[in-house]
Amino acid sequence: MTWTCVYPRLLPERRPEGHRPRAPRWTLGFDSPASLLTSDYLAVQADGEEAPAVGEFLAAVRATHGSPGAHAPEAWELLSYTDEAGAYNLVHLAYWKNSTEHARWLHSAPLTAWFHGLEAATAGHGAWHEVVQVPPDRAESIYSDPRHAFGMAACTGTQMVSMTYNGYFGAARDRLPVSAIDPLEPSEPHLRRSSPADSHGRRLRAESGHNTAVIRSGQYWQQAEGEQLADYEQALRPKLMAGMDHLRREADTEGTMSLRVMTSMDRHTLRPLRETSVLGHFHSLAALEGWAAGHATHAAIYEHAIARNRQYGDARTVVTWHEVFVLPRTAAYEYVNCHPATGILPYTPTVLAVT
Amino acid sequence: MTWTCVYPRLLPERRPEGHRPRAPRWTLGFDSPASLLTSDYLAVQADGEEAPAVGEFLAAVRATHGSPGAHAPEAWELLSYTDEAGAYNLVHLAYWKNSTEHARWLHSAPLTAWFHGLEAATAGHGAWHEVVQVPPDRAESIYSDPRHAFGMAACTGTQMVSMTYNGYFGAARDRLPVSAIDPLEPSEPHLRRSSPADSHGRRLRAESGHNTAVIRSGQYWQQAEGEQLADYEQALRPKLMAGMDHLRREADTEGTMSLRVMTSMDRHTLRPLRETSVLGHFHSLAALEGWAAGHATHAAIYEHAIARNRQYGDARTVVTWHEVFVLPRTAAYEYVNCHPATGILPYTPTVLAVT
Repeated sequence: MTWTCVYPRLLPERRPEGHRPRAPRWTLGFDSPASLLTSDYLAVQADGEEAPAVGEFLAAVRATHGSPGAHAPEAWELLSYTDEAGAYNLVHLAYWKNSTEHARWLHSAPLTAWFHGLEAATAGHGAWHEVVQVPPDRAESIYSDPRHAFGMAACTGTQMVSMTYNGYFGAARDRLPVSAIDPLEPSEPHLRRSSPADSHGRRLRAESGHNTAVIRSGQYWQQAEGEQLADYEQALRPKLMAGMDHLRREADTEGTMSLRVMTSMDRHTLRPLRETSVLGHFHSLAALEGWAAGHATHAAIYEHAIARNRQYGDARTVVTWHEVFVLPRTAAYEYVNCHPATGILPYTPTVLAVT
Repeated sequence: MTWTCVYPRLLPERRPEGHRPRAPRWTLGFDSPASLLTSDYLAVQADGEEAPAVGEFLAAVRATHGSPGAHAPEAWELLSYTDEAGAYNLVHLAYWKNSTEHARWLHSAPLTAWFHGLEAATAGHGAWHEVVQVPPDRAESIYSDPRHAFGMAACTGTQMVSMTYNGYFGAARDRLPVSAIDPLEPSEPHLRRSSPADSHGRRLRAESGHNTAVIRSGQYWQQAEGEQLADYEQALRPKLMAGMDHLRREADTEGTMSLRVMTSMDRHTLRPLRETSVLGHFHSLAALEGWAAGHATHAAIYEHAIARNRQYGDARTVVTWHEVFVLPRTAAYEYVNCHPATGILPYTPTVLAVT
């Protein structure tokens, strides 16, 4: 048995009557009730992976996880990517179901101390910290395979639950418990790109708008070989990247506030794994749905993934998954000496200088 | 039937087995499920009620409520008080069960436009804005009489529900649904008074810590006459004020971050009503409980109120009530050119300058 947040439905669900999905899918269940779910992204931004700042960041990561620390994350990962501005970003991503432990970690971890100690005006590099925290009614997830634990699913006290809320447009919305009572509209109808913040040499806070949608969409092909490996690298991945390019190029139209394609790293060797995830911030859940429902780039990805699922069944070695969080009004994103295209800086209604 | 947020209990409730309260009490029920509850306090701070800034504030209030505006609060009030520093504060307090409507109100109301337009460096007065927003699992309420609608209970779609979770120490905690699964501990064990922020001439953000407890505790004696009026003014009120003085004087020990005794005003005539409420911020729920469980000043208030309840029954004309919200980590409090003892400024771990 797992615990789920459920509301009596005031708004109709999107699932068609008698719907039977073409492929099996799973969602995250919790062994015990949870009241706030946290994903904490803390990163260094530097010229390249050899920059001294990256070494300092990794030393802080090691100090944070070296001893069986109090308030340790329930799960954590390292990921990296080179962004549109050419900067190398190395990300520490951690998950908690216990929000008090997360709050204590913020006060006590060497990694957060490193971040707070940075002098924006004199730092030779950038750093950023984005805390995504929502009640569980504002979270949903989907996995193509229950035998792996990605993202928040790596926390103890969780399990994969088979479901049929998948395989139709609107399924992600239906999986968000709060969608039963709230259409999750944005507070302002249109996405507005702000004039670029003067972010170099400064410590800035950025506030996303109410009901900003955050997706982490994952691809795992570490165990793929032969035909399936080739199919992923030569067919599915190019389709995925075409979709991501579209979402970035047409950001104003699609409601894309930020999009990062991150590569997972082995925590010990720091070698890249055959595992990526796309971290996307969207103006609203409807923006994310609009692309998924209406654009050829999404249809190409989706149909390809479903076809291979049906072709290989349990023998499928490429796993796809995502987790979505719809934020209440928040002010938890902080950028230190980052370039102005970092994170949600270009699209945030409010930027505050921290002095 | 009303909707209530309920968790399977992981932590024991405090209610003694077979408990029967000495006096009947009610709590707030919702006709439909809600996902985020909002109390929005927006105030002007001036030398006195005749200050020009007070007139400007009231004009913005009238413009906000003059037309049957979109995104109007579901309930609203005006309250005033003179604070410890001798400043006059006039407060617009508004409630929403719909968080999207609140977010839209922030973008569209003349009152919030007035607040955002203030130039901290040149304003001849202060202003502050404190948004208390929590999922319903972090809210609880109690009323001594179901025939009046105070605070959030003035929103449509709510009703008074009779209960027996009252009349024992720990009852407020038991009424918080999240207490079934979370002990609501603060992220740092001790309350820390910061060195006073240089708040004059500046626009500052203040962040309370995780699990800060906010109480609005109300007293209503508008309809009291004769013996009951005399009893309130000469006996219960002095006991209440002795308790408040203690909480303010021993703030460091009691965990009091802020305490304001506000008088409700008639919205049309602006005359004071025979209605007050104490808005208190505490380092943790345990701090609030510690005073209630252990201090003679609370016992005096409590025993007096219960005795009069039993004496007069339904004929009791003095009504007491409260609503408590336990905040997740937040950054929604903003102070413009306020004196440094305003709100949570003296006790906040983080103060940010908004430029």
